[in-house]
Amino acid sequence: MFRKRLENFSNYTTPQIECLVKADANENLLELPEELKDIIWDTLKNSIPNLCFYPEINSQPLKDALARFYSLKSENFIVGNGSDQIIQLIVQACCEQDDQVFFLYPSFTMYRITAELFDVGFCFFDITSQWEIDVEKVIDKISANERIKVIFIDTPNNPTGIAWSAENLKTVVEAFPSKLVVIDNAYGEYSDVDYIEFARRYNNAIILKTFSKIGFAGIRCGYGIANENIIENLHKVKPPYNVNVLTQNIAIKVLENFEKLKNNIQLIKDERDKMIQKLKEYYYVIPSEANFITVVDENADRIFEYLVANKILVKKFEVGRHKLLRITLGKPQDNDIIIENLIQFKKEKA
Amino acid sequence: MFRKRLENFSNYTTPQIECLVKADANENLLELPEELKDIIWDTLKNSIPNLCFYPEINSQPLKDALARFYSLKSENFIVGNGSDQIIQLIVQACCEQDDQVFFLYPSFTMYRITAELFDVGFCFFDITSQWEIDVEKVIDKISANERIKVIFIDTPNNPTGIAWSAENLKTVVEAFPSKLVVIDNAYGEYSDVDYIEFARRYNNAIILKTFSKIGFAGIRCGYGIANENIIENLHKVKPPYNVNVLTQNIAIKVLENFEKLKNNIQLIKDERDKMIQKLKEYYYVIPSEANFITVVDENADRIFEYLVANKILVKKFEVGRHKLLRITLGKPQDNDIIIENLIQFKKEKA
Repeated sequence: MFRKRLENFSNYTTPQIECLVKADANENLLELPEELKDIIWDTLKNSIPNLCFYPEINSQPLKDALARFYSLKSENFIVGNGSDQIIQLIVQACCEQDDQVFFLYPSFTMYRITAELFDVGFCFFDITSQWEIDVEKVIDKISANERIKVIFIDTPNNPTGIAWSAENLKTVVEAFPSKLVVIDNAYGEYSDVDYIEFARRYNNAIILKTFSKIGFAGIRCGYGIANENIIENLHKVKPPYNVNVLTQNIAIKVLENFEKLKNNIQLIKDERDKMIQKLKEYYYVIPSEANFITVVDENADRIFEYLVANKILVKKFEVGRHKLLRITLGKPQDNDIIIENLIQFKKEKA
Repeated sequence: MFRKRLENFSNYTTPQIECLVKADANENLLELPEELKDIIWDTLKNSIPNLCFYPEINSQPLKDALARFYSLKSENFIVGNGSDQIIQLIVQACCEQDDQVFFLYPSFTMYRITAELFDVGFCFFDITSQWEIDVEKVIDKISANERIKVIFIDTPNNPTGIAWSAENLKTVVEAFPSKLVVIDNAYGEYSDVDYIEFARRYNNAIILKTFSKIGFAGIRCGYGIANENIIENLHKVKPPYNVNVLTQNIAIKVLENFEKLKNNIQLIKDERDKMIQKLKEYYYVIPSEANFITVVDENADRIFEYLVANKILVKKFEVGRHKLLRITLGKPQDNDIIIENLIQFKKEKA
């Protein structure tokens, strides 16, 4: 009844580990300012009489709000049930069965998972030897493989936090005018590089953004920014009514009140720099421009267990022969607990 | 950059027509009881502090609530961003490129759209000659085509409202033990036939249900009910975090307070029977067990325009050489306006 290849698939889940300090999922767990909470409260209350209606089929009012926010046109946007959905739409719109997608290794796991789901091949460029991106080598790798149709570049990269300079990214986008370059900027609010210009300038680039990392992971809302042709083609494979009415309404309010989030974003950036500063004496920390930091440590498994024993949950990665711990920045007191525990581990071990 | 076949695709949209009486989308537009509104408001308010967290990855708490509601196990459920998503997951999980899906003609358009989206073929059984389902002929049609992997049966059918007897459906399910029979019961609350037993009894049947037709189209929540093996396989192709936290929380509350919706459901059934009674003197009305009625009329285009001119929006279908108007039942005063206008049209024409 089911396809044979499903035997190799498994449901994507995350371990349920009890913790007091949750630093595993790159959410922004700082409390929202009261004023913004009140606005969301009002929005939800006003939405109740509309729950009986189907939501706007293509999220048009939200696309209008995005257009105002970015000073672009609503035709430059597509909205998804999380940016995961936009990744899926891109693969569906661009790739036949013998095509491939390209990504960095490591990078956001949904690129690989989505490719596998749609019987599309993939190839990647390994950045683990130096934890930096050698653009020339990336271009060589892509040039050598004509089957690549989509190039996924998450910048800042997950799980390392490494961001591409606009200059380097330009080199890649310009080198492959017939391939779609996906600039996944999920962590963009925590970085100093802005890629919006790419949507205006190039016919083969799309920028992905999300509300998930700035305090609204629960609403599941991501969006793509690109020229009208790309957006129109992605809409052709988008399921109707893909974003519910509450999510659309909250997202509009968040955009309209974005300045109220700025303190929360700045605080995380400051905390990140503090954590890197305090840990670098003890750990190899990859320079991050996201709302997390990543340490590379051969004892990552033991450190992870040590943290869990102290009710701290971070995310563990095995990347080739390397072991990584990705730690999401949260409330200052929680960050301090993490720093303390990580230093304590090293001292106990020493 | 994009797949060639996208040239034949278009974004699925609905016409934006202004109206005072909205009877086009099979929503339930009756006002919710105050008590239920209060419960939903509390739920939304209490969800605000959780908006920063990713939702439960597989909607486990909602599946637990569904298990209690249906006296089944949570392993018997999969939750989707609308039942549209479950339809998509079924096609992804069951069909290779040369396979086909089967459905009735006419039936819910997402079966065909989804098949096309995933490069899967389709074939159908035409019910327009008698507006009834000849089970033997359906079985013959399916038997003659080995490429069929999935059999979609919407009962009550959209757009006719025709419901299958459990007996007839059993014949089909038992005739094809190696094909998945999808019993799309989106309008089940308005029908007297209950198919839940099929999920307990058969290894090749899944029932689809939704919150959309009972007053909650805005939250986008549908679910599948089947044995554990089917559910497990569908979860393998389900994107993580596919249902947002607000939708999950509202759906749980709706299930826990389902008896509060019963008056709204009964009223629609009564109004449906009244509308059929009043119109059948003037129109050919297909006997419906859904929250809509459908008239077959060669002047459907003119009737549609006549209704639009009077600020009434219904849904028009061309099905082969037949023309249909599907009219969603709404508030009694709105239903009366529709009846009045439809009778007036016939009188003016006569």
